[in-house]
Amino acid sequence: MIPGLMQTTPLLTTSILNFAEAAHPRREIVSRTVEGRIHRYDYAGLAERCRKLANALTKMGVASGDRVASLAWNTHRHLELFYAAPGIGAVLNTVNPRLFDEQIVYIMEHAQARVLFYDATFAPLVERLAAQMPSVERFVLLADEDGHQPGAVGAENYEALIAGEPDTFDWPVFDENAASFLCYTSGTTGDPKGVLYSHRAVVLQAMAEGLASAFGFTAFDVVMPCSSLYHATAWGLPFAAPINGCKLVLPAEKMDGASLQELIEGEGVTFSGGVPTIWTMYLDYLKKTGGSTGTLQRVVVGGSAVPLAMAESFKTDHGVQVLQIWGMTETCPLGVIATPTPALAELGQEALDQAIWTRQGRLQFGIELKIVDDDGNEAPHDGETSGALMVRGPWTIQRYFRQEADVADADGWFDTGDIATLDEFGFMRITDRKKDVIKSGGEWISSIDLENVAAGCPGVKVAAVVGVPHPKWEERPVLVIETHEGANVTVDGVIEFLTPRVVKWWLPDAVEFGAVPMTATGKIDKKCLRAAYKDRLMA
Amino acid sequence: MIPGLMQTTPLLTTSILNFAEAAHPRREIVSRTVEGRIHRYDYAGLAERCRKLANALTKMGVASGDRVASLAWNTHRHLELFYAAPGIGAVLNTVNPRLFDEQIVYIMEHAQARVLFYDATFAPLVERLAAQMPSVERFVLLADEDGHQPGAVGAENYEALIAGEPDTFDWPVFDENAASFLCYTSGTTGDPKGVLYSHRAVVLQAMAEGLASAFGFTAFDVVMPCSSLYHATAWGLPFAAPINGCKLVLPAEKMDGASLQELIEGEGVTFSGGVPTIWTMYLDYLKKTGGSTGTLQRVVVGGSAVPLAMAESFKTDHGVQVLQIWGMTETCPLGVIATPTPALAELGQEALDQAIWTRQGRLQFGIELKIVDDDGNEAPHDGETSGALMVRGPWTIQRYFRQEADVADADGWFDTGDIATLDEFGFMRITDRKKDVIKSGGEWISSIDLENVAAGCPGVKVAAVVGVPHPKWEERPVLVIETHEGANVTVDGVIEFLTPRVVKWWLPDAVEFGAVPMTATGKIDKKCLRAAYKDRLMA
Repeated sequence: MIPGLMQTTPLLTTSILNFAEAAHPRREIVSRTVEGRIHRYDYAGLAERCRKLANALTKMGVASGDRVASLAWNTHRHLELFYAAPGIGAVLNTVNPRLFDEQIVYIMEHAQARVLFYDATFAPLVERLAAQMPSVERFVLLADEDGHQPGAVGAENYEALIAGEPDTFDWPVFDENAASFLCYTSGTTGDPKGVLYSHRAVVLQAMAEGLASAFGFTAFDVVMPCSSLYHATAWGLPFAAPINGCKLVLPAEKMDGASLQELIEGEGVTFSGGVPTIWTMYLDYLKKTGGSTGTLQRVVVGGSAVPLAMAESFKTDHGVQVLQIWGMTETCPLGVIATPTPALAELGQEALDQAIWTRQGRLQFGIELKIVDDDGNEAPHDGETSGALMVRGPWTIQRYFRQEADVADADGWFDTGDIATLDEFGFMRITDRKKDVIKSGGEWISSIDLENVAAGCPGVKVAAVVGVPHPKWEERPVLVIETHEGANVTVDGVIEFLTPRVVKWWLPDAVEFGAVPMTATGKIDKKCLRAAYKDRLMA
Repeated sequence: MIPGLMQTTPLLTTSILNFAEAAHPRREIVSRTVEGRIHRYDYAGLAERCRKLANALTKMGVASGDRVASLAWNTHRHLELFYAAPGIGAVLNTVNPRLFDEQIVYIMEHAQARVLFYDATFAPLVERLAAQMPSVERFVLLADEDGHQPGAVGAENYEALIAGEPDTFDWPVFDENAASFLCYTSGTTGDPKGVLYSHRAVVLQAMAEGLASAFGFTAFDVVMPCSSLYHATAWGLPFAAPINGCKLVLPAEKMDGASLQELIEGEGVTFSGGVPTIWTMYLDYLKKTGGSTGTLQRVVVGGSAVPLAMAESFKTDHGVQVLQIWGMTETCPLGVIATPTPALAELGQEALDQAIWTRQGRLQFGIELKIVDDDGNEAPHDGETSGALMVRGPWTIQRYFRQEADVADADGWFDTGDIATLDEFGFMRITDRKKDVIKSGGEWISSIDLENVAAGCPGVKVAAVVGVPHPKWEERPVLVIETHEGANVTVDGVIEFLTPRVVKWWLPDAVEFGAVPMTATGKIDKKCLRAAYKDRLMA
């Protein structure tokens, strides 16, 4: 080969900020603040405040490669950290405040952040754990100057910190493979693991995300990320929105129906995304108030499978398209998105909707997928055969932070821990987590498929299925049901509901009623359930 | 900084081919052949034939870094070369067959291609010049095996060459900055200059091109590139289409109204693009036949300014949106594209249309623009002040092939040779080529603006304006008019038409009638006109 002679300009996150300021300076960014008011500025305003913050960080002694931590909601101040910290070559460690104390302490110890920026909401948490965060030299409260509370940690005020700084800053140009974000996965087993995003991965993912195969953003879109900024950079929306000139609406932590509706109606939101729970609450709110979804066009759902009733209600009652996505912290974070294709459309609207709502999504440029059997042989793309889902590509993890060995194999394949199928249309469907799949007499039962069916049983609010030890079949399913208030659901009723809907050997060996425990990221805590029911079928 | 820990998978053009095969295997590619028939296959078929071709190239001894030349139209065989040659690490030199013999000989001598692939159309050209192409070891005719004509150069047949090859090939993985394409600019002065695209530049440009700020492709689009594949990779469409799952329609050399209409109607084309001449002919054809544009939604026009009448006719008569673009071989090739923004839309539909049709386009992520005055100071973005247009970014040229020095300056800025304005909406308007702007008494007259006005004068087919030496004002404009057949256009009539439409000192000092000479790329040959009229005002 001979080298090409084009510019090798690095793909840095500041190139997104600079572009937005040059191309869309007056496009608005609207943020609910933790204080409760609405803050408004635009991409020019964001860029200016990011430069002030970059000066402040530099003055604090934050150097290239240093970690800066945040414990913060979806606000404009957190967004400023998203650009300023990586912009100076530092690494923003977005800590998930919903984790257990010991996990947060572990992360702070592991990441060794020198500065911690936090919202007032988390002042008690910070004060409780500060002594166990010896790497942190400075605490900064993301709050208005008025009524600033330094608290026991003697926090500085964010606004005071940047107030006197110059609004010019020469963003350094460095290797695009430099680290930009450090996001920890909060698996249900073992310690959190750090994924160290490069600038290149973030920028490429943001470019890909704007394509019509993914979010299909236009300059007319108004994007409200309801997935948390601390959760794998809120699906990259803080980067994909400015690349496409979209207005950005940040809802802070207010995910209740009324608060979302205020922003959706008031700001003309066209696109939003988050876990299903939020959207179920939102639809309930609309039903109660008789409100409409206004300009909303698309709702992207990730984190867990789309409840069909929700997708149908959005479509039928409000003309809003629900799209599923699948991704992981390790894929920076988007893997696949369920968007229409001509081949699917040929099957008719109903089949198209079903496909979109029941599959996690289709292949996107930049993420290669394969499914393999226990021996590592590639499984056919028939939509039936499930296997371990492996991914690779320019925004897939190579190695966890501070680990000695790669987590991707020699060919770059990363084992997602999911069990999935791939079909002829390039659509992927997650059938289970590898650790949750139920191994019954050598055959697999998908806990997720069983939950999805059980969730349709009248009166059922949450259905959870775990495999527990069985004397004869190795494992058998136990179904745990949390019912709606006042609903009368019986074991016999549930079995009767399931019988015509699943093959006989999938029927759970026990049905239990009670509250279903959830993890910090809003997923069913199967580890906890497995522990609770481990002896249920061994008697 | 510390290195991120994501995969550093190189961005190679084969990643696009592999993606299209995995995600959109059955999406069609329809090509008119030079033989006249319609060839149909799909992305799986393309990938398979590319692997066979890669095997054939390897067997021929084409090694990584070697140049392979093509003299070919927009067909599926040329498309296969687009993927197979760069795919094995070689460089595809797409030679413009419309250049003069001496330019083609210069390019072949400069590029040193070892193999030349050519369409039957160019057999006479190849035979005429073969003796002056000593680097070429093998000639391959891109044609059916039936009726193959080896000619004086003893050409092999393309189909025979790949027929026996295995359809498996392990595409090598190499540095994304490796060269992929070699495209020569055909400036009107000096020798052609080679622009050596890297794989990275081509892939990044293709990703950016699919965004809504640019072509906004969806998987439902049917894309027909009417810009030549040999002309800066036909705007990158052979790469942007598969990334977005678009059906691809290749019209060979048949750009007449009837041939285009056959494909637009028959294949459901939604998106096409090319120089204005093609679209004027197409609209004339529709008028004559009473035909409709069918599924066509967008027509992108580049190469020269959009004639307003054409844009209006497309919109009013057919509901088709015309979009302008600007780019250069040196920008791989897209620079800006005129797509709507909310800020523009607020001005109303008419203002929006006018803005879109009269400006080359708006800032795209990945291409930075600035305009500078004679002293290199940046000019304001007021839509009025014009200056030299400078660009930089990851798909902008650094250095021409085989040159000793960079053509980009130390900060990466490449001087486009265009004079332009930038406005508050991020839109750029080319007012002239630097060498064509008319310097009259220290003030600038835009030859393009004057041409655009004169083109509106009844009976005028082509209007060309050049600045020629003037004893008092340094330069003054001469207007050369080619009239429609049978039209009666007079000097007085033209001046009368122009007077209320331009400031007085812009009025041409002479109006001449005659055929307007064109360059090989379909632009007005101003060098030729300046020579013809150099003494016109000196008498």
